[in-house]
Amino acid sequence: MTESAQIVLAGLDAIRSDLEDLYQDLHRHPELGLREQRTAHKASDALRAFGYEVTAGIGGTGVIGVLANGDGPTVMARADMDALPVREQTGLPYASTATVTGPDGTEQPVMHACGHDVHVTCLIGCARLMAQAKDVWRGTFVALFQPSEENGDGADAMIDDGLTSRSPRPDVVLAQHVLPYPAGYVGTRPGSFLSAADSLAITVHGRGAHGSMPQAAVDPVVMAAMIVVRLQTIVSREVAATTPAVITVGSIHAGSGPNIIPDSAVIQLNVRTYDDETRTQVLKAIERIVTAECEASRSPKAPEIKRISSFPPTVNDEVPTRRVAEAFAAHFGDSAHTIDLQTASEDMSEIPKAFGVPFTYWGIGGIDPDRYAEASRNGTLAQNIPVNHSPTFAPVIQPTLDTGVSALAVAALAWLGT
Amino acid sequence: MTESAQIVLAGLDAIRSDLEDLYQDLHRHPELGLREQRTAHKASDALRAFGYEVTAGIGGTGVIGVLANGDGPTVMARADMDALPVREQTGLPYASTATVTGPDGTEQPVMHACGHDVHVTCLIGCARLMAQAKDVWRGTFVALFQPSEENGDGADAMIDDGLTSRSPRPDVVLAQHVLPYPAGYVGTRPGSFLSAADSLAITVHGRGAHGSMPQAAVDPVVMAAMIVVRLQTIVSREVAATTPAVITVGSIHAGSGPNIIPDSAVIQLNVRTYDDETRTQVLKAIERIVTAECEASRSPKAPEIKRISSFPPTVNDEVPTRRVAEAFAAHFGDSAHTIDLQTASEDMSEIPKAFGVPFTYWGIGGIDPDRYAEASRNGTLAQNIPVNHSPTFAPVIQPTLDTGVSALAVAALAWLGT
Amino acid sequence: MTESAQIVLAGLDAIRSDLEDLYQDLHRHPELGLREQRTAHKASDALRAFGYEVTAGIGGTGVIGVLANGDGPTVMARADMDALPVREQTGLPYASTATVTGPDGTEQPVMHACGHDVHVTCLIGCARLMAQAKDVWRGTFVALFQPSEENGDGADAMIDDGLTSRSPRPDVVLAQHVLPYPAGYVGTRPGSFLSAADSLAITVHGRGAHGSMPQAAVDPVVMAAMIVVRLQTIVSREVAATTPAVITVGSIHAGSGPNIIPDSAVIQLNVRTYDDETRTQVLKAIERIVTAECEASRSPKAPEIKRISSFPPTVNDEVPTRRVAEAFAAHFGDSAHTIDLQTASEDMSEIPKAFGVPFTYWGIGGIDPDRYAEASRNGTLAQNIPVNHSPTFAPVIQPTLDTGVSALAVAALAWLGT
Amino acid sequence: MTESAQIVLAGLDAIRSDLEDLYQDLHRHPELGLREQRTAHKASDALRAFGYEVTAGIGGTGVIGVLANGDGPTVMARADMDALPVREQTGLPYASTATVTGPDGTEQPVMHACGHDVHVTCLIGCARLMAQAKDVWRGTFVALFQPSEENGDGADAMIDDGLTSRSPRPDVVLAQHVLPYPAGYVGTRPGSFLSAADSLAITVHGRGAHGSMPQAAVDPVVMAAMIVVRLQTIVSREVAATTPAVITVGSIHAGSGPNIIPDSAVIQLNVRTYDDETRTQVLKAIERIVTAECEASRSPKAPEIKRISSFPPTVNDEVPTRRVAEAFAAHFGDSAHTIDLQTASEDMSEIPKAFGVPFTYWGIGGIDPDRYAEASRNGTLAQNIPVNHSPTFAPVIQPTLDTGVSALAVAALAWLGT
Repeated sequence: MTESAQIVLAGLDAIRSDLEDLYQDLHRHPELGLREQRTAHKASDALRAFGYEVTAGIGGTGVIGVLANGDGPTVMARADMDALPVREQTGLPYASTATVTGPDGTEQPVMHACGHDVHVTCLIGCARLMAQAKDVWRGTFVALFQPSEENGDGADAMIDDGLTSRSPRPDVVLAQHVLPYPAGYVGTRPGSFLSAADSLAITVHGRGAHGSMPQAAVDPVVMAAMIVVRLQTIVSREVAATTPAVITVGSIHAGSGPNIIPDSAVIQLNVRTYDDETRTQVLKAIERIVTAECEASRSPKAPEIKRISSFPPTVNDEVPTRRVAEAFAAHFGDSAHTIDLQTASEDMSEIPKAFGVPFTYWGIGGIDPDRYAEASRNGTLAQNIPVNHSPTFAPVIQPTLDTGVSALAVAALAWLGT
Repeated sequence: MTESAQIVLAGLDAIRSDLEDLYQDLHRHPELGLREQRTAHKASDALRAFGYEVTAGIGGTGVIGVLANGDGPTVMARADMDALPVREQTGLPYASTATVTGPDGTEQPVMHACGHDVHVTCLIGCARLMAQAKDVWRGTFVALFQPSEENGDGADAMIDDGLTSRSPRPDVVLAQHVLPYPAGYVGTRPGSFLSAADSLAITVHGRGAHGSMPQAAVDPVVMAAMIVVRLQTIVSREVAATTPAVITVGSIHAGSGPNIIPDSAVIQLNVRTYDDETRTQVLKAIERIVTAECEASRSPKAPEIKRISSFPPTVNDEVPTRRVAEAFAAHFGDSAHTIDLQTASEDMSEIPKAFGVPFTYWGIGGIDPDRYAEASRNGTLAQNIPVNHSPTFAPVIQPTLDTGVSALAVAALAWLGT
Repeated sequence: MTESAQIVLAGLDAIRSDLEDLYQDLHRHPELGLREQRTAHKASDALRAFGYEVTAGIGGTGVIGVLANGDGPTVMARADMDALPVREQTGLPYASTATVTGPDGTEQPVMHACGHDVHVTCLIGCARLMAQAKDVWRGTFVALFQPSEENGDGADAMIDDGLTSRSPRPDVVLAQHVLPYPAGYVGTRPGSFLSAADSLAITVHGRGAHGSMPQAAVDPVVMAAMIVVRLQTIVSREVAATTPAVITVGSIHAGSGPNIIPDSAVIQLNVRTYDDETRTQVLKAIERIVTAECEASRSPKAPEIKRISSFPPTVNDEVPTRRVAEAFAAHFGDSAHTIDLQTASEDMSEIPKAFGVPFTYWGIGGIDPDRYAEASRNGTLAQNIPVNHSPTFAPVIQPTLDTGVSALAVAALAWLGT
Repeated sequence: MTESAQIVLAGLDAIRSDLEDLYQDLHRHPELGLREQRTAHKASDALRAFGYEVTAGIGGTGVIGVLANGDGPTVMARADMDALPVREQTGLPYASTATVTGPDGTEQPVMHACGHDVHVTCLIGCARLMAQAKDVWRGTFVALFQPSEENGDGADAMIDDGLTSRSPRPDVVLAQHVLPYPAGYVGTRPGSFLSAADSLAITVHGRGAHGSMPQAAVDPVVMAAMIVVRLQTIVSREVAATTPAVITVGSIHAGSGPNIIPDSAVIQLNVRTYDDETRTQVLKAIERIVTAECEASRSPKAPEIKRISSFPPTVNDEVPTRRVAEAFAAHFGDSAHTIDLQTASEDMSEIPKAFGVPFTYWGIGGIDPDRYAEASRNGTLAQNIPVNHSPTFAPVIQPTLDTGVSALAVAALAWLGT
């Protein structure tokens, strides 16, 4: 297998420049979830050019390319394609200036602030290398480009649109994510890897009045503020210190001016947990607190708590994870690590679940190694290393792309290599 | 004088229907501050038709009409013209459906939620009656239609645009406001009548990050929520119970989704006080609390506290107020009252201040008297009687308009009547 | 009457030194409510020496002395005797160092921090002067020394112990209080003078655990803190700015060390309001907030809200107040004022209520006039003038005592003078 | 070694009843830290009776007993002796009713709520068995009874009093703690086992006044409540979800009645962290928040933050831990486990540190196994299984004592057994 990988990856030098151009092009043209037409076309066109049998438009913009290469296992590698409504502040020459009209009619900035452009580029690169070296592997390689990971509905969209009957059933599903580790780093982890994530939109109701007459109002701004404050006590007091949990109120909106007490307030929040018991406990505690705080404010109407999105925990299967970890150790040497539990979420696991097959998911680094080392020495990692979703998140192009392409190929060949 | 008023007001029956039509038309077509073109045209056209010498466009859309009628005092009566960015929910047949493009490009609803349409209609009615009965009064009557009272910059706009040199200098300035009292009611008050009002926009700075990594962020949502909570303690703990003060946070905005900790949060608030010492104390306390709460949150950047608008207290001069109160008692009998201190604000006093002349300001009721009486009996005034700026604020047309026209005429004739 | 007062008060020079000694003695020996044995003995002994018919031990330590002097009205003047559990920090040569064993077995400091020693001294002085000048007045003078005003149960204790059948029925009841105004000042006020005051003890229940395991606990410290914070919103948001109301949480107690989460927390609070509607509204809001915050904390047991004490509002009757105000104007000249509404409370009004007779209550100043004037000029009254109940509250002996004696005599003689 | 253990433990049946009596006696007579005279006497007397060379009074009440038994390693086993100021609510026939006069003169309840009576009993039992079977082991066994573990100053007291020169230098130090696991359970853990714990007393300063005049005060109750609320955000927002940290405010005290705003408030809190970086970060954040909240309240004086106690993290050395784990596996079979990270703290590690030797520390269960199993099934462990420091913490006598005695002997014999 190791030898297969060496042969397959020998082709990387020749395509590196193409991949770097592709990456910059994708970065310049980010697309929000379920709108990834341009990105999907790039992927489809590339796969077709490499000789894959392509099915596009699965679940809107999802794409699969199948390269059958004789008897053997089937390996599916998945990349997600969507970007985020973030205004890029990287200052990169290939920074995004894209905007899009949002659901409320306003112009929203768009940015690949989570590195899905890296994922797409690396999977296209791997797909190309696999197609160029078909004599050192046997079986079927499936490249899957998924829409709308950020909204948690892209994997489901593909599944609902018949993915399992439109693709060969894989023996294993592979996926990777670029993370704020030094570029070159590859990190695997058996068991829990990513958190469950539940996003809620909560509307609380007061009663509006002129700002000078609070006694005629039920003030939803104070009500929402008390809820934000009170929610902190769930993590600080109701969950054990050794049980990871996060509640982030990402947005709060009420009123349109200084002087009119509005009728209602809306907060949106996100919950991260790593097991079902804690997940249930925290979601119940949120409902309890929101309800009680509305009562404390004599709210005239019950609050509305709506689920915006819901991500399962990503729990890597032990067997394929060990297989990939060994292949990485052989190929990457000291750059192969066991990665820490990550407080992020993914809907990727829905895909293997739909097929009823195991999966493994790993991380690759995207930060300039010297910069990372310096921040680490100075204890300023949190301040100086932009993380995913930040407006300054900017993976270095190399060795990030080389590592991502190699990791996909090495992992796939752990099943397919001869 | 009383006789003059009877003669002038004898003309009311004949114009009542016109005034009611005008009121409904104005209510249907509300205009935000400094955009009152249509309203100003209505006023100018009417004044010209009644024989007034009209100067329009003072301070943008301000209008004055001068009716000189021999030797005698000069009385200026002022009405404000602007509406509010509120979505009307009165269900009235003449409800506003108007919207306007706001400074941020979004469509905003517009509504006469503060009754300035009543003020404009009544002043046009009074101006017409004064013009029709010139033989029972002597002197000069000036009708002034002011823009942008809600923003606190309309009186200043007219003054800055030369009002004092473009209008005769009045001996007294009169103004009135429709309030949530029973229609028919007129209320005067010597001394403090309306509060000072200061509106602030406060931006607090955090550091954004993915919602799963609060440790990499400084959360501006929690920071803003703590500020809202903490600000409550100024009124509850720092101001004496017998010193009126209000701090309303009318809006809070941060973030665009559940899952990204934003960089900053913005709150807008309004402060009501009745004397300069308390005003200074409260504004300083706000600054102290905002600054300290940002420090408690280890904010990376000092908060920005901007004055949006600033209204002086409205303190009626004793002498003209007594004169008007006596004239009201003679004309309205038991419907003439001493009104309570009002927790609202006005920039009207800037006009007499610019001329260096005294003024008096009074309130008229706008609520159906039966409805008011029932709510008063049931102790449900706060719940059932919509107040100014509420989306359901809807003065009954009569006897509100009759009372407003009569009050202006009676008050003006207290100086001008023969 | 004025002449009577001059004759009665002519005796003041001769007794001034005795009164000043008495005052310092009382100040050195403060006694908590219902324990005023020493003070009551001083009063009884003095009254007997002056020729009064004395009944002691009414309601524990209450004392009345009756001086019948022919036909005429009956005037009752009341002084309260009790001190406070405050550690004196005045640095006065006659400062209290007294302590007493409290209900929980601990030593508590005691101090006349509310000036009842002034009241007792002045009433003894007035009683002496009245007895020395019986030929310039007619009727009956009743001096009443009441226990336990601070706890709000002293007047009731005397009434429950038969006061109305053990004392002549007065035509009017008079009382005074030393306040942080310049010494020499006397202030009357018709109608509302002092607030209603309701004190509550609230126990909230959590579940204890080791401090390292908050998830096993329901934290009553956080619960109580949230309640304290939330209660601020009643005054800031639920009561109109022009309606005085105060909620003070005077004590909070929970836990015995840093490291064990306790089972419960206790807060004690005091509510000041000036009308029954607001009083009811605020007390209900407290109950609503406490209950809801306990629910927000998933408290395992409903909170207990107990009334500790309850003071009615003190609303002066108009007729006797006018009578006293006129007598004060005649005697004190420019030092007689109309006083502001006071945010303090009293149970004194229970006594006239029990007799079914009117009353009036006034304030006298106790602050060195020069010090007061300077603080007033510098805007530092709040910082530099210690108020009642403060550990540094220290009325200047003169002209405070002279003024208090004179005010009682002048007021009594407004009914009794010939 | 295994055989040695079997022989040593064969003596357990004969002493079991004595140990159970001793346990109940100790439980009935708990003593607070540095006051463990009775307990220390029991230990000294027993050790002398078994033939140990005893040194008592080290660091106040500390005791060591040395049993030299030929050449071989030296093993020190340590038990802590002190109880807690908790009022026992177990309902046990041998429940404590003890009280003690606290530093403030009040009576405090005392209870063995942390199971140190188990530790003392088991070490006395083990010491007896070791003395009875000297032919199956070689070397020196040191039994150390430490005072005042709860206050974190008992190990230091012994060290400061010359422990290292008054005891043979051990090759390894052993200690155990009873925990809320099923009785019979023994749990080892290499590396981090127990948290660092820092206890702080924080005094914040306001300015007192009568409760009706908050404007004259700076309210320390509101200040302290805001601090408690704000401190929650450190764990919820400033520390990563995967980094364990706890901040418990165990006590809050201010004021003595409902109606006087006090001068100051005192909170006591405890911090649990597992690494020095987080420990430093959290302690700094507490200081930052306390300081800023005092500024937000315009506190007239800087807060005082005092360290009450400070426990290091307990990090087991790998080599002796593995040795004990293997011995436990051989002796206890399936009852030997790897235990989870514990959110409690200990000063035990100061002793091996003073000697410069390695140590290992393990947990034993104290809960009735059936009760534990049922609570586990029902998901009610947190509700139904009382944890250490709770007033209902009540280890079942057996198999808890047998397990504790056996674990000590088995572990010691892993070095000493022949």
